Amino acid sequence: MDLIKAVSFIIIMEGNSNLGQWGKRGSNEVKTFTEYLYIETKKKREYVNITDMVEELVKKGGIEDGMVLVSAMHITAGVYVNDAESGLIQDIDEWLQELAPEGPDYKHHRTGEANGDAHLKNLLIGHQVILPITKGRLDLGPWQQVYYAEFDGRRKKRIVIKAMGK
Amino acid sequence: MDLIKAVSFIIIMEGNSNLGQWGKRGSNEVKTFTEYLYIETKKKREYVNITDMVEELVKKGGIEDGMVLVSAMHITAGVYVNDAESGLIQDIDEWLQELAPEGPDYKHHRTGEANGDAHLKNLLIGHQVILPITKGRLDLGPWQQVYYAEFDGRRKKRIVIKAMGK
Amino acid sequence: MDLIKAVSFIIIMEGNSNLGQWGKRGSNEVKTFTEYLYIETKKKREYVNITDMVEELVKKGGIEDGMVLVSAMHITAGVYVNDAESGLIQDIDEWLQELAPEGPDYKHHRTGEANGDAHLKNLLIGHQVILPITKGRLDLGPWQQVYYAEFDGRRKKRIVIKAMGK
Repeated sequence: MDLIKAVSFIIIMEGNSNLGQWGKRGSNEVKTFTEYLYIETKKKREYVNITDMVEELVKKGGIEDGMVLVSAMHITAGVYVNDAESGLIQDIDEWLQELAPEGPDYKHHRTGEANGDAHLKNLLIGHQVILPITKGRLDLGPWQQVYYAEFDGRRKKRIVIKAMGK
Repeated sequence: MDLIKAVSFIIIMEGNSNLGQWGKRGSNEVKTFTEYLYIETKKKREYVNITDMVEELVKKGGIEDGMVLVSAMHITAGVYVNDAESGLIQDIDEWLQELAPEGPDYKHHRTGEANGDAHLKNLLIGHQVILPITKGRLDLGPWQQVYYAEFDGRRKKRIVIKAMGK
Repeated sequence: MDLIKAVSFIIIMEGNSNLGQWGKRGSNEVKTFTEYLYIETKKKREYVNITDMVEELVKKGGIEDGMVLVSAMHITAGVYVNDAESGLIQDIDEWLQELAPEGPDYKHHRTGEANGDAHLKNLLIGHQVILPITKGRLDLGPWQQVYYAEFDGRRKKRIVIKAMGK
């Protein structure tokens, strides 16, 4: 699949939207589509640019004007919009480590888990964004890129992408 | 009301949605519903799991596919999605206290208020989430629970729940 | 334009929505509108109350029930909901400076940029909110005000405002 460019993670797409099956453009009926992305990163923490995939779904989805929700279905991963610049991504990672550090002292770890920090990183960065769709395309600023932020990876995680509009 | 399980807060629901009064399922007309939850916590800071209530509204609301906004109508309370694990909730509370501490030194306190920290906690955790609705149900991951986070309680506060879809 | 009240920034509105051109109120057809605000602040960091402008658009827009997305189209600016109290705004600014400080040490600065902190402030405060529309008006709590938060100003930046509903 030519959408996949990176090599340090695997992405699988599984949708129920029958892309391209919707009614004619220009009607005022509500259209929706829903797709699920599965992402498995090789590292514990990793930042995956999913903009092209979301854009591709939106272009195929036949919604001319509306909004698309991009939301991690996990409590140890986030979704955010920012720059596709590798230095900045390192800055973000170090900043999250500083404000929500890994460590043994979380009460959550009494359950046997060791990922307390990943929950806090999720809360700090947010687990979802909602993006405008205008003229059938993602309506983003020139530097806005959509990232999936994995904080407890090395296993298959899921993102829901749901669009609504006309 | 059997939805209320906790005893340290009171919740009242007041809606204008005439749940169950919408048109037939499967049409492409836009449907919306709006409900308000009133929550009064006994403690200043408290974390209330409202997932079952939101789920119940969505199930009754007759929207098959769409999104639901869950948004605190206050600037000293938040709404977030994370784990229903009591240790983690304590971790979250301590973390918020560390990054947005209570204290006498906020300029906001010149107005006579004493809740500067609650405003910052609101900004840190966020005051709203938007959840996907698929096949008439909340489309959440297995561990995702919706929480109302009170940072300045002991008085009646309000949450708006607005769904839109078809 | 009487919507502009402040003097330390310039706002220009440019929309494609033909406000007031939509179908009759009360129908169940989907309506959307999209407007862009251009804001140029005089200071590097500045907090601009845009509630009246968003409210005005919603009132003119003819959507009775739905949601409106207010989203910065930049990665060094945010949008948030909180209090219109000048002391608190100073508290917010100092707090953001503390948790995401300016400084020379960001890896992002290897690109020649000097605004690493502005990217982190964007992630901390969030770049968007989605507001409920009920009975043709913004459905906010009594103290909820919508702010554009500029972290790297002195140039023209853009906000997208997209509403959807019926």
